[in-house]
Amino acid sequence: MSKVKRIGVLTGGGDCPGLNAVLRALVKTAAYGHGISVVGFLDGFSGLIRDRTLRLEPDRVSGILPRGGTILGSSNKDNPFRVPAVTDGVKGFEDRSDDAMRVFAAYGLDLLVVVGGDGSLTIAHQLAGKGMPILGIPKTIDNDLAATDLTFGFDTALTTATEALDKLHTTAASHHRVQVLEVMGRYAGWIALQAGLAGGGDVILIPEIPFTIDSVVEAVKERAFRGRTFTLIVIAEGARAQGGERFVSRVVEDSTDSVRLGGAGYWLSAELEKRLDREVRGTVLGHLQRGGSPTPFDRILATRYGVHAANCAAQGVRQVMVALKGMEITTAPLAEAVAQLRLVDPESQIVRAARAVGTRFGDE
Amino acid sequence: MSKVKRIGVLTGGGDCPGLNAVLRALVKTAAYGHGISVVGFLDGFSGLIRDRTLRLEPDRVSGILPRGGTILGSSNKDNPFRVPAVTDGVKGFEDRSDDAMRVFAAYGLDLLVVVGGDGSLTIAHQLAGKGMPILGIPKTIDNDLAATDLTFGFDTALTTATEALDKLHTTAASHHRVQVLEVMGRYAGWIALQAGLAGGGDVILIPEIPFTIDSVVEAVKERAFRGRTFTLIVIAEGARAQGGERFVSRVVEDSTDSVRLGGAGYWLSAELEKRLDREVRGTVLGHLQRGGSPTPFDRILATRYGVHAANCAAQGVRQVMVALKGMEITTAPLAEAVAQLRLVDPESQIVRAARAVGTRFGDE
Amino acid sequence: MSKVKRIGVLTGGGDCPGLNAVLRALVKTAAYGHGISVVGFLDGFSGLIRDRTLRLEPDRVSGILPRGGTILGSSNKDNPFRVPAVTDGVKGFEDRSDDAMRVFAAYGLDLLVVVGGDGSLTIAHQLAGKGMPILGIPKTIDNDLAATDLTFGFDTALTTATEALDKLHTTAASHHRVQVLEVMGRYAGWIALQAGLAGGGDVILIPEIPFTIDSVVEAVKERAFRGRTFTLIVIAEGARAQGGERFVSRVVEDSTDSVRLGGAGYWLSAELEKRLDREVRGTVLGHLQRGGSPTPFDRILATRYGVHAANCAAQGVRQVMVALKGMEITTAPLAEAVAQLRLVDPESQIVRAARAVGTRFGDE
Amino acid sequence: MSKVKRIGVLTGGGDCPGLNAVLRALVKTAAYGHGISVVGFLDGFSGLIRDRTLRLEPDRVSGILPRGGTILGSSNKDNPFRVPAVTDGVKGFEDRSDDAMRVFAAYGLDLLVVVGGDGSLTIAHQLAGKGMPILGIPKTIDNDLAATDLTFGFDTALTTATEALDKLHTTAASHHRVQVLEVMGRYAGWIALQAGLAGGGDVILIPEIPFTIDSVVEAVKERAFRGRTFTLIVIAEGARAQGGERFVSRVVEDSTDSVRLGGAGYWLSAELEKRLDREVRGTVLGHLQRGGSPTPFDRILATRYGVHAANCAAQGVRQVMVALKGMEITTAPLAEAVAQLRLVDPESQIVRAARAVGTRFGDE
Repeated sequence: MSKVKRIGVLTGGGDCPGLNAVLRALVKTAAYGHGISVVGFLDGFSGLIRDRTLRLEPDRVSGILPRGGTILGSSNKDNPFRVPAVTDGVKGFEDRSDDAMRVFAAYGLDLLVVVGGDGSLTIAHQLAGKGMPILGIPKTIDNDLAATDLTFGFDTALTTATEALDKLHTTAASHHRVQVLEVMGRYAGWIALQAGLAGGGDVILIPEIPFTIDSVVEAVKERAFRGRTFTLIVIAEGARAQGGERFVSRVVEDSTDSVRLGGAGYWLSAELEKRLDREVRGTVLGHLQRGGSPTPFDRILATRYGVHAANCAAQGVRQVMVALKGMEITTAPLAEAVAQLRLVDPESQIVRAARAVGTRFGDE
Repeated sequence: MSKVKRIGVLTGGGDCPGLNAVLRALVKTAAYGHGISVVGFLDGFSGLIRDRTLRLEPDRVSGILPRGGTILGSSNKDNPFRVPAVTDGVKGFEDRSDDAMRVFAAYGLDLLVVVGGDGSLTIAHQLAGKGMPILGIPKTIDNDLAATDLTFGFDTALTTATEALDKLHTTAASHHRVQVLEVMGRYAGWIALQAGLAGGGDVILIPEIPFTIDSVVEAVKERAFRGRTFTLIVIAEGARAQGGERFVSRVVEDSTDSVRLGGAGYWLSAELEKRLDREVRGTVLGHLQRGGSPTPFDRILATRYGVHAANCAAQGVRQVMVALKGMEITTAPLAEAVAQLRLVDPESQIVRAARAVGTRFGDE
Repeated sequence: MSKVKRIGVLTGGGDCPGLNAVLRALVKTAAYGHGISVVGFLDGFSGLIRDRTLRLEPDRVSGILPRGGTILGSSNKDNPFRVPAVTDGVKGFEDRSDDAMRVFAAYGLDLLVVVGGDGSLTIAHQLAGKGMPILGIPKTIDNDLAATDLTFGFDTALTTATEALDKLHTTAASHHRVQVLEVMGRYAGWIALQAGLAGGGDVILIPEIPFTIDSVVEAVKERAFRGRTFTLIVIAEGARAQGGERFVSRVVEDSTDSVRLGGAGYWLSAELEKRLDREVRGTVLGHLQRGGSPTPFDRILATRYGVHAANCAAQGVRQVMVALKGMEITTAPLAEAVAQLRLVDPESQIVRAARAVGTRFGDE
Repeated sequence: MSKVKRIGVLTGGGDCPGLNAVLRALVKTAAYGHGISVVGFLDGFSGLIRDRTLRLEPDRVSGILPRGGTILGSSNKDNPFRVPAVTDGVKGFEDRSDDAMRVFAAYGLDLLVVVGGDGSLTIAHQLAGKGMPILGIPKTIDNDLAATDLTFGFDTALTTATEALDKLHTTAASHHRVQVLEVMGRYAGWIALQAGLAGGGDVILIPEIPFTIDSVVEAVKERAFRGRTFTLIVIAEGARAQGGERFVSRVVEDSTDSVRLGGAGYWLSAELEKRLDREVRGTVLGHLQRGGSPTPFDRILATRYGVHAANCAAQGVRQVMVALKGMEITTAPLAEAVAQLRLVDPESQIVRAARAVGTRFGDE
């Protein structure tokens, strides 16, 4: 039986299918295997600084394995080192990390498990710097964390994006249309690349391979020349034209209304319609990619992460992130985990495979 | 054996899951049951006026039952009475309905089967007026044709919209968000209403029940007051504020780019975010609703329409549309089919059922 | 506000997707619309005679709309008029219907809502005979209740069966196999008929149309003659050969083990393999058809039933079953509801449609 | 441009989702990248010895990426070294491998690509021994090939099995049942293990960990003691009791009929029902696991295998199998590929993870 008696856990950042599977595995392994009890903090770091908790026992996590979302709630707003605050009527930020340390101590916790992406793990790393024992569990549908081969949630997002492409495929073919699908990926193009490969995307545009609009136009025309009357284009939200900026959602003031615009997808659709003089339709998948029941792959990976974190906690391992290396779950230093993003290498085997089957990346 | 020897068929208007199932059933029944051969016109009325065809035999339609789209292609551009044309450098339209009559005659056809929605069936009705024997098959994912109880494609679109709501539900709940989902329905709110009922939408906004933004804001706040930290809103693309216009996609000139904006969904998201001072996320499902493999319900309905049309063709029935009445397939005069749309009755049982379980329509 | 203050509800018989949607709609409508509170009895009539209950409030039914199963539990064992009992060491039955009446009275209930199929509604009818006010809600995946056009659960079962056929289709085609799929339907062949239509079944065998094995063999051979190297056969569990008995699961004593055999599906597979001298594969879908998240269609129908039952309860309507007639929910006398089953009419339009596209029923 | 001009390909053994994706990628890469043409042999080795072929050009493989099955057909009967034959009225086998060599030579092929599992690759290895240049592509839904980390088809089978468990879960919980699901895996328990992990199986029985029926009975009782009224059991078809034989489908002579019995699943269901005196339901997934559209993961892996095989073919690499090692596609000697199976290690991290969350393996 471990000397560790009680640990905390929170889920931070954007939603991600598999969070509940992590919590279930963590709590069950902690309880059954090590006699450790688990305190859940609500809504990410917000619950930690405001002392809002949910006691997590095996019964409470029973049945949540297949469910999307997180029973703890999440938030990507309350960075303890930079909490939005109004002082003397002026909007600003305040450092409430001492509150976090105090709450942590008040519960007599031996460790805090942070399930999060780049942002949440960076905060966790800072708390570790203040002396809080931390275990990280990587979480991002973008799959862009450098210290692990894969993150849970990605396979589910990929499946949602591929099913969308399958649907657009039949309707594009019937109507001889150019169909543009914008998927998530602000810095890394993993979802666009793999959904494009799986869904037969004719053109794939990702942040790591800046494109020219001329090349995309050319790809559509060349297909038409070969009798293919439709073209499917997958574009990551963070894709960018050569020499250009990353597209970002922006607000347009239009007489009376201000309207948030989709970025890359709508821009590309409008641009192509102008240049091609034919019907182009754009779809932005958006938050659909963050929801739904996790795929079996994600449920298993999330479960294994949760089990490993509980075991590490019991063994006194700290200041690391659990990670997948090949077929095994292992750990990586927290510092390394947040040091850099895992981007698509334009020269990698998988990109070359996509080119081999005829996919264009807009840089030809 | 019928005196009818050869019939034509075309699929017109927007894409709709089940078109291939109709073609398969029509061709098989015509061939096996009546010895009638079928000529398919490509890309809607375009193929009819330009004489572009595909011979449809049982072998060619084998295996297409579960596939989205239409092997004939479709188009919503080439109304034979109003074909886009350039005369003396001026863009305009010309009447090519005589070409349509000529091609029809040249193939020695006894009848033309038109699978289409309101637009295509109106054209078919006009061709009937010129003497062309017509059989209509109703097709619209919006389910807004008055002369039939149900159209195929609707159940598939409803399923796609409901699955989207299921996904948004988990992520909205985890992040305490207001999530807005825009679905199809320019004049009739059937998809929004039924997807909202099936997916647990808290607020449903449809063209038939004009809303006030105050009422929607109130619904979100009331939920928050009762401890429900998230709200799911389903809005039809044709929904409109009381006293206001129908939202339509519009183009905004933003310094260098012109951008097509989503209508109702994005507008509402921006408006709510402003008024509620909290995170609101909008998703526009768009063409995903027109694609994909048809549901069993749609495959069966489409098959029954195709069979019935072939039988009607053989029996010399003309100038009607096949239609579902209760559990039976029957026919309705073509004139009646295009006379009016089938809208949601705000006082109907199904709307009252939605209100009974707590759904708001923005008119309270 | 209604004079009715408190009602009970139970879910009886086999599992059926949509039960939770019924409970949610019933409880919400009762509470919000009529100020009626609802007591749930656990595990069907078992909870009624043993006084095991769950208080159902709007909060408790929140979020269960998309879930399969029933939060009340179900059972098809405890008929109050015939409860298994051991008296003086002898297994027998006892009448505990007076216990049911007593528990009903003890809770001060104005009405009992019974969600059930043929069996449960017959019991409810008997309790009505003893003076208990009853409202029935029809529930059966078999869709074989005469007094309603459709029951919830059927569309979900149909979808599961059709997806199975879609999967078997690709593998049958690749391996040139005869694939037999056994689906539910002891007396009525609705699932087999409609899944066969939707999934492109080449042969459909249902209880209402007794088949000959010779005709089935002939159908396979004829397809082979036309170059179709595979055949998909859908068989209802209650299908029967002409002049033969209904297949039922039976137990075979095989030296040491007794083994429960699937009925119709395995029998047919073995028989065809013998006669055709080629690979035949049988699959029995079984309980998969009773599980899973209900389709949008079923969620809506179940919700409408629940709402209507609550409204009827408030208005003092008793001894009826809610029912779908065309597009409206209405009521039918309970006596009528249990009087007879709704079977497939071999001469009906839908059977003739299946024949028209080339489907065989084994009676040719 | 490669010196290689023309290669052959065949798909052998049991069906597997992703075969079409392999063919598409192979043909496109061969044509676009290397100017190599591809001849497809029909129905596995059968087409090779009988000279039945399909010319595979990019147009012919267009659109097949998402489809299950194989457009080439498959067979697991015609081992060229042991073809069923009747000589002088006696059933036996003949060696027709020389026919295979002759046909291969007649088409002027530089190489034969064999997409197959253990059986087909062993045959390919033997043909290599006779001098035929071979490239293997691993294919098995069981994921039991030692020389590669993963095979395509497995993720799809896993998904089908997990969806079945999700469905059984709701109905088991509602009816307080023991539900047994038999999945594929004659020698390796990968599907049972991972589907069990993903679907929350309470007991997982696999060939690599022989079980005792007492232990399984104990697991069900212990759950009941803790208030869990249902138990989900996943059993691989090749699971076996300690000291016992592997279960295999067997034929029982029952008066007039001979009936093929499911093996492990039905046996276990009957046995448990006897010992527990409560309702146990068994479902055998069977061929559903081999069908359907491949998951995105499988489509990508299959595509990468196809691309890599074409590249290897062009570069003159022979007598190897393409394989996944970590994140990269590489090659392994054909001899190594068929040397041994990849089994579940009972002491592996993933098995221990399953035990950590409370899963029983019947050996406790």
